[in-house]
Amino acid sequence: MSLSIRNQIPGTVASVTPGEVMATVKVRLAGGQEITAAITREAVRELGIEAGSAVRTLIKSTEVALATGAVEGLSIRNQIPGTVTEVATGGAMAGVKVAVAGGELTAAITRDAAEELGLDAGSEVIALIKSTEIALASS
Amino acid sequence: MSLSIRNQIPGTVASVTPGEVMATVKVRLAGGQEITAAITREAVRELGIEAGSAVRTLIKSTEVALATGAVEGLSIRNQIPGTVTEVATGGAMAGVKVAVAGGELTAAITRDAAEELGLDAGSEVIALIKSTEIALASS
Amino acid sequence: MSLSIRNQIPGTVASVTPGEVMATVKVRLAGGQEITAAITREAVRELGIEAGSAVRTLIKSTEVALATGAVEGLSIRNQIPGTVTEVATGGAMAGVKVAVAGGELTAAITRDAAEELGLDAGSEVIALIKSTEIALASS
Repeated sequence: MSLSIRNQIPGTVASVTPGEVMATVKVRLAGGQEITAAITREAVRELGIEAGSAVRTLIKSTEVALATGAVEGLSIRNQIPGTVTEVATGGAMAGVKVAVAGGELTAAITRDAAEELGLDAGSEVIALIKSTEIALASS
Repeated sequence: MSLSIRNQIPGTVASVTPGEVMATVKVRLAGGQEITAAITREAVRELGIEAGSAVRTLIKSTEVALATGAVEGLSIRNQIPGTVTEVATGGAMAGVKVAVAGGELTAAITRDAAEELGLDAGSEVIALIKSTEIALASS
Repeated sequence: MSLSIRNQIPGTVASVTPGEVMATVKVRLAGGQEITAAITREAVRELGIEAGSAVRTLIKSTEVALATGAVEGLSIRNQIPGTVTEVATGGAMAGVKVAVAGGELTAAITRDAAEELGLDAGSEVIALIKSTEIALASS
């Protein structure tokens, strides 16, 4: 399977909290971090997702934000520390690669943001991903 | 009113499943595909969306991912097959136009992704769109 | 046309920075805040967006994150301070209404996040919105 979705991190489902329409799924990643995904309850049922399921978390690059320091009091559930390995700059956007425990993340952010944060290879960052932006694939 | 949202596909609501905060709305597109949108319940109420309503599904290009083969076991509800008609490449991002039954989709993906998937005019792809990324307009 | 997109804030375009595929558009909102939207260059051209254009910024509720304190060193361009007026809680998700200068924002966040942040009517928050999640409508 070839997907344009740059970020695909394997993990194991820790818990599923179903609402009426949506469900939150907590996934323990190979690198040790915990990720929360908010997906439809229908998807949980059809994929047979439950505690112990092996899944891949899929995150489109445009959904990854970056912070250069610790962030507290934030509704964004998913905060993964890492180190920038590469910044590719276009006219309006920048693609930033971040090495994290157990893998790599790509973030597509505005060029302005990349410049103002002074991102460069070696920068320590925290990748921020809203739960509603995370999809899951059963493996 | 004109929208910057590139992807606007007309359809008819097949069903509405309300939760307390969110609701999922299934829409049958003109081209025959079925789309699931997760929108707020408040929006469903204010727009008077119910089975039979004529709507347009609105999807920002940055929310469309592409796969080059069949994708199974994926939480992403919306999978629309099509054929690439054009790839425009920038420094960080690429814009990919995909002809689908009943219309056209534009996907804004990373340049890396476009290159690794070998996307070019004629490539067969499946457009993937998470339900939470789909908005609806009443017509 | 009515839109399911909860957040529609009028403003005036301050500047457009075109890349090859994407463009960033800075919009001065009625309430005085500045918003950056990353949209396709094609959309900019077709909508005739330029400095001085009257637009509405459109933001889906699921794209709005909330922080309870100041956030620095963050790639998320759009940070709008406000006060929570209402929290509606479902099984998995919560809908949070935030009064901001010149209007109101709705954020759909996880129930966990709403509880951990202790959000309630009167809470001071900062709404965070990634530029790639903001669409524009010409009026």
